[in-house]
Amino acid sequence: MQRSVYLKLVSPAEALRTLLDAFAASPLKPEAIPLSQAHGRVLAEAATARLSSPAFHGAAMDGVAVAAEETFGASERRPKVLRLGEKAHWINTGHILPRGCNAVIMVEHLVPGKDASGHETVTIEKAAFPWQHVRKLGEDIVATEIVLPPGALIGPYQLGALAAAGITHPVVFAKPKVAIIPSGSELVPLEEATEEILGQGEKLPEFNGLVLAAMVREAGGEPAVRPIVPDREEELRRALLEAVESDADLVVINAGSSAGSEDYTAGVIAGLGDLLVHGISMMPGKPTAFGSVRGKPVLGIPGYPVSAILAFEELGQPLLAAWMGRSMPEPGVEQAVFPQDIPSRPGMEEFIRVKLGLVNGNFIAVPLPRGAGTVSSLSRAEGILRLPADSEGLSAGSRSPVRLIKSARDIAGSLLAIGSHDNTLDILDSLLRKHYPGRSFTSSNVGSLGGLMALREGRCHLAGSHLLSEDGEYNKDAVRRHLSGFPVQLMRLVDREQGFIVPPGNPRSITSLHDLTQTGLRFVNRQRGSGTRVLLDFHLKRLGLSSGSIAGYEDEEYTHMQIAAAVLSGRADVGLGVKSAAVALKLDFVPFAVEEYDLVIPMRYWEDKRIQDLAALARSDVFRKVVLDMGGYSVDRSGELVWTFPG
Amino acid sequence: MQRSVYLKLVSPAEALRTLLDAFAASPLKPEAIPLSQAHGRVLAEAATARLSSPAFHGAAMDGVAVAAEETFGASERRPKVLRLGEKAHWINTGHILPRGCNAVIMVEHLVPGKDASGHETVTIEKAAFPWQHVRKLGEDIVATEIVLPPGALIGPYQLGALAAAGITHPVVFAKPKVAIIPSGSELVPLEEATEEILGQGEKLPEFNGLVLAAMVREAGGEPAVRPIVPDREEELRRALLEAVESDADLVVINAGSSAGSEDYTAGVIAGLGDLLVHGISMMPGKPTAFGSVRGKPVLGIPGYPVSAILAFEELGQPLLAAWMGRSMPEPGVEQAVFPQDIPSRPGMEEFIRVKLGLVNGNFIAVPLPRGAGTVSSLSRAEGILRLPADSEGLSAGSRSPVRLIKSARDIAGSLLAIGSHDNTLDILDSLLRKHYPGRSFTSSNVGSLGGLMALREGRCHLAGSHLLSEDGEYNKDAVRRHLSGFPVQLMRLVDREQGFIVPPGNPRSITSLHDLTQTGLRFVNRQRGSGTRVLLDFHLKRLGLSSGSIAGYEDEEYTHMQIAAAVLSGRADVGLGVKSAAVALKLDFVPFAVEEYDLVIPMRYWEDKRIQDLAALARSDVFRKVVLDMGGYSVDRSGELVWTFPG
Repeated sequence: MQRSVYLKLVSPAEALRTLLDAFAASPLKPEAIPLSQAHGRVLAEAATARLSSPAFHGAAMDGVAVAAEETFGASERRPKVLRLGEKAHWINTGHILPRGCNAVIMVEHLVPGKDASGHETVTIEKAAFPWQHVRKLGEDIVATEIVLPPGALIGPYQLGALAAAGITHPVVFAKPKVAIIPSGSELVPLEEATEEILGQGEKLPEFNGLVLAAMVREAGGEPAVRPIVPDREEELRRALLEAVESDADLVVINAGSSAGSEDYTAGVIAGLGDLLVHGISMMPGKPTAFGSVRGKPVLGIPGYPVSAILAFEELGQPLLAAWMGRSMPEPGVEQAVFPQDIPSRPGMEEFIRVKLGLVNGNFIAVPLPRGAGTVSSLSRAEGILRLPADSEGLSAGSRSPVRLIKSARDIAGSLLAIGSHDNTLDILDSLLRKHYPGRSFTSSNVGSLGGLMALREGRCHLAGSHLLSEDGEYNKDAVRRHLSGFPVQLMRLVDREQGFIVPPGNPRSITSLHDLTQTGLRFVNRQRGSGTRVLLDFHLKRLGLSSGSIAGYEDEEYTHMQIAAAVLSGRADVGLGVKSAAVALKLDFVPFAVEEYDLVIPMRYWEDKRIQDLAALARSDVFRKVVLDMGGYSVDRSGELVWTFPG
Repeated sequence: MQRSVYLKLVSPAEALRTLLDAFAASPLKPEAIPLSQAHGRVLAEAATARLSSPAFHGAAMDGVAVAAEETFGASERRPKVLRLGEKAHWINTGHILPRGCNAVIMVEHLVPGKDASGHETVTIEKAAFPWQHVRKLGEDIVATEIVLPPGALIGPYQLGALAAAGITHPVVFAKPKVAIIPSGSELVPLEEATEEILGQGEKLPEFNGLVLAAMVREAGGEPAVRPIVPDREEELRRALLEAVESDADLVVINAGSSAGSEDYTAGVIAGLGDLLVHGISMMPGKPTAFGSVRGKPVLGIPGYPVSAILAFEELGQPLLAAWMGRSMPEPGVEQAVFPQDIPSRPGMEEFIRVKLGLVNGNFIAVPLPRGAGTVSSLSRAEGILRLPADSEGLSAGSRSPVRLIKSARDIAGSLLAIGSHDNTLDILDSLLRKHYPGRSFTSSNVGSLGGLMALREGRCHLAGSHLLSEDGEYNKDAVRRHLSGFPVQLMRLVDREQGFIVPPGNPRSITSLHDLTQTGLRFVNRQRGSGTRVLLDFHLKRLGLSSGSIAGYEDEEYTHMQIAAAVLSGRADVGLGVKSAAVALKLDFVPFAVEEYDLVIPMRYWEDKRIQDLAALARSDVFRKVVLDMGGYSVDRSGELVWTFPG
């Protein structure tokens, strides 16, 4: 087998500079288009006014238009009477001054009447000065002036200014055309990816094309997703040549840019033209390559969705922007506190996706999974931390700037929960957004104990907890032990059934903890500090069973759903979790215990409008109905204050 | 004549609350659409995963897939040899694990070879543990989990997450449909607004429809601009009824909402339904009205472009966002210093458009014209100051938060010039943007003297100046007098001809300042502190002419182009200005003096990259050619350092 080798790794900044230098000449032709189609386009040259705005003298007030000279000498003692239609003309704001007029007298300063011959008149008691209450020709824009510079993005304001200046056909850049080649023998088009086909376990749906096309559109370009190319060097070469010979200004090959045995992208670029960069010191996104084929830029980006997106954000979008003389839009940045250690990968610039909360005036950043395949880590991300290549990581409690994806205002309207995971937390978020506009709920799953620690350190607004103490009571003992001096309220969210999640039909006949010690059986556990782990250990101890007797006790997952997924996939024969997770994946469930799942809320937030909205929602019929439908829950006390801990 | 009367003025916040309360029920129906069409749409309900992602166990590294159990016991001393295709399978990152395998061994930890029978093998020296280097089923998303909450805007990241979760037909809100009715007898459609028609002086092009349609699209809606309705009550009523009976969710009547004699909007809404608000304490935008007709919201917004835009931003866009369960995007905000007094209008919330520069670490805000008709004040705006209704205005030097329109980074790349106006400054900006990406040039025209004051107070990076002193020299004397202790460099931008701007053919035969005292002649002057005014006064004094002998000496404009516009429109018979302004408007020009127009640059900025880029541009052939083509300039010393003032 052959594997290509990375050229020297270069930094993201160096890679971008290399790309922009190599393709500095914009291939985009200027074109004059009707203004009605110009929204979202970018000016290729300065737009100079064809007309002045206003194009004529116009009234700036409602009243009558006059020649100021006709009013000279008017006073309270010697008012002047002007005949309407002759020396004075009714006029409304914005309308064109009649010929011969050079001033407007406000309606409040007039007395309408009739003269002896019955002709309508106005009487004025004060002279008008020339050009009073008149919008003069060219007051806004004078013909031939530059209205907008080249590189200006035409939004609503710009449409108005161009129209006012008589520029009905602005000269804009042709939209950059981007050909996207998905490659990979395992891929099927998204619309053909039926469950039958995927169920055979050999095919994956191709959707990076859709994602990249959207990114091209957001950068003002026109994407064309070409047919999927299998992992065969010759076919990739042919597909690349076809794309380069098309009208595309930029060609993107998605996947095959790594160093795997079927990663032909870098080699194919090198074979047909010049390979400029192969390998960028960024994570995700390292296996990125680009070069020049027949003078056109060809970008080879990795197949993992997060890598593909970040690589295109770092290179593709800035190239399109540069061709249009634009800089990239700039996200907001806030200093955020990291409650957990963030280890770094030396020599790599890392893009760490985080959730954010505004707690006690501090932005708190909770990291999402780092994997390049976890596209949900981007769709759920509220910010991105860029950890420089020379960083040694962040230690818990340190601060670092984070680029905001969610706006600071939306973050401020959101509650941040750190602690135990329960599926009803996601329900809370969805229902809050729907029924309490401006509210949302972000949760980070670190287990019950971690939640209490985070509360105490002021790093979240509330914590979900279900910690069983030796006296068989939930939460109170743990709160007393870990939050002394820190007054909190306990609000019940749900009572829930915990039990054994097993394959349909319960083939191993699991009914008790003793059954977990069967030979050949594999268990999947929750992480240390989680309430479910505490529950397991509590009962193992009571029964005198050793954890060593359970195969898989050390195999840990972080959520109930991942426990269920492990059972569904055959990775494990049984796990301990909530009924809703088993029901969701159509697995069987053997009840084991009913737990009290509480939200632990610092006293100082109890009256916070966000908490009160949350409590109202937890008591609502809509929440109760959705939760009961999930199975395994009791909602009799949902939203109830169950205990006050004075600290 | 009849005039409608405003209902009680309400604040913008109160108006919005009234609108959102009255139309709280979203009229938008949820619809399932193919994912390929979902970019930019908004989820109407929570999207729950149909598939897990990954849907199968997959390789997280390049190498071989194995069943971990087959490797148990392998060590350096007792390596294991696995036959390829039987116990080990080559696999690339991201690919699906073959059935029976549960671990991946990295390519770096393998030795390929052949066994005695010639079968290909790999040799391993370390046992694999189960699930090592495997992306487990559901690691990212587990089927049935909530992938995105309702109200989520579907961008590229979200497309990826939806596709990964097998959601091929997300349920989104139908796009809100907005009917826009332009009204006004003076309006002609933009595409019919030929110069012949406009030249008759009675018609204005209708373009607010285009602007509002773009604003609707940016808010995720679908606009329909309906035919122009003349200012006749009955026709407006009919047009409104038709629009309300169409599929529109919101109807916007543009103009006619004021209290003028032909402003029927409020009355028509009241006649057909309920008028909820008429008159909002905002400036521009006061004459805004809205109500309910047949249960649909009808928004009557003013005709001035700036008023129309701001009224729709305050009311229309938030209503559409609320219907989709979204909050409005939040602009960046920075504290900015206001170098000039900003008077307030008591009782009105004012929207003051500003240009911005980052000088010495401070954002400096220079106000643009306030008029509601100056649409260029929006298209040129880099920020907006909202001055609350109870504000007493800002005094020079005070700070206030400004919403950014231009990004902070783009502002940081820009040079802020305050001082004298010259048309070549606009050329500098256009050429800088084109040839020096990331650079731009913002100029505020307050006259030469005002520029030196602004420099001294640290409120700009440079100042254009052409101040003639009594000894007949330019700029040096003024710099010595006003910038003592403040070292600067003088860079020549251009030498330029000043002269009399007169109508074609010079009908008044102006050849000298004496001619300005002709009976019946009207002059138009530049403002106090401008170099052109200083030039005029210098020569008047030398000739012993009194300013009182010149009719129109008190009639002031702020730019050369506005002087030319005043002559073009017949408002004045003559003005003093630069040749390029006369040439631009095809007026005649009688040369009077050649001036030295310099850029005054503080020593501390002289080495600044932005200044050096500017100087390089001023010396470039492209700048010189464009300037020479304008007429009236000499560029022999452009970009040259002409004088150093040590302070």
